[in-house]
Amino acid sequence: MSNELRSVTELDRLIHEPARLLIVTILSTVESADFLFLQRETDLTKGNLSAHLSRLEEAGYVKIEKTFKGKLPLTVCKLTSAGKKSLTQYRQQLQDFMNRTQ
Amino acid sequence: MSNELRSVTELDRLIHEPARLLIVTILSTVESADFLFLQRETDLTKGNLSAHLSRLEEAGYVKIEKTFKGKLPLTVCKLTSAGKKSLTQYRQQLQDFMNRTQ
Repeated sequence: MSNELRSVTELDRLIHEPARLLIVTILSTVESADFLFLQRETDLTKGNLSAHLSRLEEAGYVKIEKTFKGKLPLTVCKLTSAGKKSLTQYRQQLQDFMNRTQ
Repeated sequence: MSNELRSVTELDRLIHEPARLLIVTILSTVESADFLFLQRETDLTKGNLSAHLSRLEEAGYVKIEKTFKGKLPLTVCKLTSAGKKSLTQYRQQLQDFMNRTQ
């Protein structure tokens, strides 16, 4: 059995981290989302959300644009095509593991 | 949507870690397993496997007995009922998340 099961250790750990999995999942359902929306939806602290978004941006999974809405700063986040692809692959690998170990 | 999705951040991180998920999954399919069997099945290094087993033992998820087989040391690992329960709950929560976000 083990070769197939063992592939669970090859899961993309950047996405596997639960808070980041939540962030990329939310972003996968919208065209883009601003920081406050993500904070409300995830219930993460500002610091935690920032840190996770930075990790995702560094990996090329999320694109972050800092602009202004009037005089207020606005941070807009968007899942990149690389991020979408990695999420799809992650979900497939995880579901395969779940199915094989029912 | 978010309250339900957000529960993904409450996953048991002890089990969520991929190598430990593999270990507890293997242990859930057998009565008990010795260290060498687990090492072969997981393909983890001795040090990594030891460290993960210690974490699982500290949490009360795995019981580890060090005995001898003749003159050779034998380390026998077994998933406890608490470990079984946590794995079942983890799988349920994860599958719920996957189903809700298809």
